[in-house]
Amino acid sequence: MCGDAHPKALLRAIQEDGDYLLKLANQHIVSSDQFTQNGMLQLFRLAAKYEANPRRFSTSLQGKILISAFYEPSTRTRLSFESAWHRLGGDIMSITDRSTTGIAKGECLADVAEMFNNYGDCVVLRDNNESSLEEMIDSLRIPIINAGNGCDEHPTQALADLYALFKWKPELTTADAKQHAVSVGIIGVPNRMRTVRSLIKSLLKFPDAIKELVIIHDDSVSEHLFAEQQREQIEQAGIHVRTSTDLNATLPDIDVVYINAISWEGETFNTYGKSFSLDAQSPLKEDAIILHPLARGPELATDLDHTPHNWYFSQARGAVFLRMALLTCMVQRAERVIDVV
Amino acid sequence: MCGDAHPKALLRAIQEDGDYLLKLANQHIVSSDQFTQNGMLQLFRLAAKYEANPRRFSTSLQGKILISAFYEPSTRTRLSFESAWHRLGGDIMSITDRSTTGIAKGECLADVAEMFNNYGDCVVLRDNNESSLEEMIDSLRIPIINAGNGCDEHPTQALADLYALFKWKPELTTADAKQHAVSVGIIGVPNRMRTVRSLIKSLLKFPDAIKELVIIHDDSVSEHLFAEQQREQIEQAGIHVRTSTDLNATLPDIDVVYINAISWEGETFNTYGKSFSLDAQSPLKEDAIILHPLARGPELATDLDHTPHNWYFSQARGAVFLRMALLTCMVQRAERVIDVV
Amino acid sequence: MCGDAHPKALLRAIQEDGDYLLKLANQHIVSSDQFTQNGMLQLFRLAAKYEANPRRFSTSLQGKILISAFYEPSTRTRLSFESAWHRLGGDIMSITDRSTTGIAKGECLADVAEMFNNYGDCVVLRDNNESSLEEMIDSLRIPIINAGNGCDEHPTQALADLYALFKWKPELTTADAKQHAVSVGIIGVPNRMRTVRSLIKSLLKFPDAIKELVIIHDDSVSEHLFAEQQREQIEQAGIHVRTSTDLNATLPDIDVVYINAISWEGETFNTYGKSFSLDAQSPLKEDAIILHPLARGPELATDLDHTPHNWYFSQARGAVFLRMALLTCMVQRAERVIDVV
Repeated sequence: MCGDAHPKALLRAIQEDGDYLLKLANQHIVSSDQFTQNGMLQLFRLAAKYEANPRRFSTSLQGKILISAFYEPSTRTRLSFESAWHRLGGDIMSITDRSTTGIAKGECLADVAEMFNNYGDCVVLRDNNESSLEEMIDSLRIPIINAGNGCDEHPTQALADLYALFKWKPELTTADAKQHAVSVGIIGVPNRMRTVRSLIKSLLKFPDAIKELVIIHDDSVSEHLFAEQQREQIEQAGIHVRTSTDLNATLPDIDVVYINAISWEGETFNTYGKSFSLDAQSPLKEDAIILHPLARGPELATDLDHTPHNWYFSQARGAVFLRMALLTCMVQRAERVIDVV
Repeated sequence: MCGDAHPKALLRAIQEDGDYLLKLANQHIVSSDQFTQNGMLQLFRLAAKYEANPRRFSTSLQGKILISAFYEPSTRTRLSFESAWHRLGGDIMSITDRSTTGIAKGECLADVAEMFNNYGDCVVLRDNNESSLEEMIDSLRIPIINAGNGCDEHPTQALADLYALFKWKPELTTADAKQHAVSVGIIGVPNRMRTVRSLIKSLLKFPDAIKELVIIHDDSVSEHLFAEQQREQIEQAGIHVRTSTDLNATLPDIDVVYINAISWEGETFNTYGKSFSLDAQSPLKEDAIILHPLARGPELATDLDHTPHNWYFSQARGAVFLRMALLTCMVQRAERVIDVV
Repeated sequence: MCGDAHPKALLRAIQEDGDYLLKLANQHIVSSDQFTQNGMLQLFRLAAKYEANPRRFSTSLQGKILISAFYEPSTRTRLSFESAWHRLGGDIMSITDRSTTGIAKGECLADVAEMFNNYGDCVVLRDNNESSLEEMIDSLRIPIINAGNGCDEHPTQALADLYALFKWKPELTTADAKQHAVSVGIIGVPNRMRTVRSLIKSLLKFPDAIKELVIIHDDSVSEHLFAEQQREQIEQAGIHVRTSTDLNATLPDIDVVYINAISWEGETFNTYGKSFSLDAQSPLKEDAIILHPLARGPELATDLDHTPHNWYFSQARGAVFLRMALLTCMVQRAERVIDVV
């Protein structure tokens, strides 16, 4: 499969420093803001270690219980987390439907959090309400992961995006990153799409790896393209940012094309960039890669699946290993998987 | 956390007698009527043993499968049972929605029971239909637990209630109980609330521990406050019972306040005692404790959460260990966790 | 229980030949067409080995993850597969409701398949759409089982049917089968019922065991009783086939009565043969057995449950062991359970 590069190159490029992983013990993961460059690199290294040898650590989470609470419908993200947890030997309790829960009867989220403390060792929460996480955190004594909160953030998706990027070009993680820096084009609306918001926050921690960031959008959203201070933050990080409304004119300059047409808005979703789509005829650079958080709509043609541009399948596959890495650290089992303790 | 007293005191107060636990092997748990004082004490002792050392028995249910059948929506009770089962190393199959089942197609419960025989080792059933359990039991060759059947009973909730009570005051389990006897106030309707019905049945087995039982209710239900014979049974057990419609006048005499405002009625629920609520300004005895089966509504103010009156969080936490104890015995694994065999 | 004959007789009747089981490694199970006589016999033998000693192989699927995807509502079949998987020590991720999935958002099945590749080791799929399996298979790198696709097929049900038949009369699996051949009566519509379609395809592989196949149907469907070529295929296999619209006139000649009144049609179902029903007064041969895939409706009276005709409960129980056998082989763990390797 295209994009299924061996993770060993990335494993070799990053030197292990387990302290960054141990620091994640019992930490809530709410926003991509929280991560440092080194913290992310160590997670990518651990993910690569898992991916290079999937069966080696099959009992790291034995005896641990995950509460998988998906109050907003999702199969892909839920199964990705649940697969990660099961592959490490842990047990899972799932909530797949808000209507079957006490929340439907009016229970407050602080009480739900108190309940979760008694029942599990870690919570994965998806909710269309941006503030749900914050309402629970004060009462939680076990760590929680934000698996998408409304149109706010989806930090583990961004980690999976960067993990794919760095597997493709491990040299971007090194001191020489600047010599290999890439142009990243994002088709979407940074102001409204949680995947894009989290991705941008994560990219800010790797300014040397990014030659230029191009936001490709249609005219209708140009006013609200960026959230307040979002553009300024990118520039302050030292990353050159520009916008474009002409996809095909832009593509020949782009090394990494990130496309995602779904934007969650409260209880529903909209699609942006209907005017934009990629197919095998798009004027992509010969060695450009495409990333997409999936599920895809018509914006990404299947005739790209069998081209070397397809790194979105590798990205989806890597997301499981990335989540294995993060979950291991959060529930204080990092010491079981670090090589040198 | 308030109420998070160490269970070791209770563990020390009760002498182990494994025979009572072995007798629960393959027993159906339908009603709080079924338990004897000694049977309950041994369950509380085992629960305390689990709670005192949560990681010690993580494989007691290995190879056993729980069928978690919640035909009436619930997250709290479902996850409490599922967490109990997983913490002991067992596997689970969940039914969280009646509409996805054969019952929706008109399958009779005796056939569902026959199916369950083939698929698992124990059933937890919640159903809004009072008679569902009885319809299944004749065909079942594996044990079933009643996790709430309409407005009838919820026996494991009552066990969890008493477990919290006795952790708070272990001396109530001893031969000296009478010297330490407490006044118990129940805000609710014994005739209509399954939690209250089961609690009263359980309290009847500990008459020495109860100085007085006060039912606090509003005027509108006074006619139907008790089910037929319910009041007579309390008195026959030797427990003094009185009723009151004035919460605040009653509270200064009460050691244990039990409050629960939800009453299940067929497919829906009502709230009783809207006129009653507890908060940090309520005239509670200084050392009174509050129990509540949760989820809570406005009847229990959150400003009590950080007071020493809050034993409801400990009660919820303990419910997992209590259920671990009961499930272990039902599926014939008690001999693995009894100290002296 | 009637029909709960010891599987050891079947185990003795079939000689082990592990090669047939090893060949199932990583195979998709779509249709009953796929199986050979020897392949089925070896599966029945392994199922009998599991059933004769249910606790012996409790870790054969350790570390393996099942994706249990039931887009069409079902509890019985879902729990049967999930129980089979858990009894062998594997982990499970369940999808019980199409509305919570990406498919509801328009995701194509090829992408769902790609997702499943990353998350699990085997897929069980039930869908009311006949073509769903075919749409996924090209993209799947892990094996998939058809657990009912519209009104097309349900091959593991047919395997369970034959497993029950051969447990009842192990001599039908031997070289002497012809001397013991039985008359099989099927109440239903071969053209429209997936269970019947798959059963007939499976019976075709055992022509020596079948003296006669009688299709019992009501007049209203006689035109569309058989699918194109279906009747011809039966006859070409050397099995005599006839039809009847008079159940009671036919019963005295029948050794094995197969009844199933539900027929899936798109998103809904119809019942056929309302005019036909079996009860303890039906003119059954003294030693005739009844098979029914369950759940049952009024066509099968419960007064038969405690008669020796009842092999449908044994059939349901055996289905779990049959599925254990098949799943073990598909995920390449057969070598762990074959006696001689």
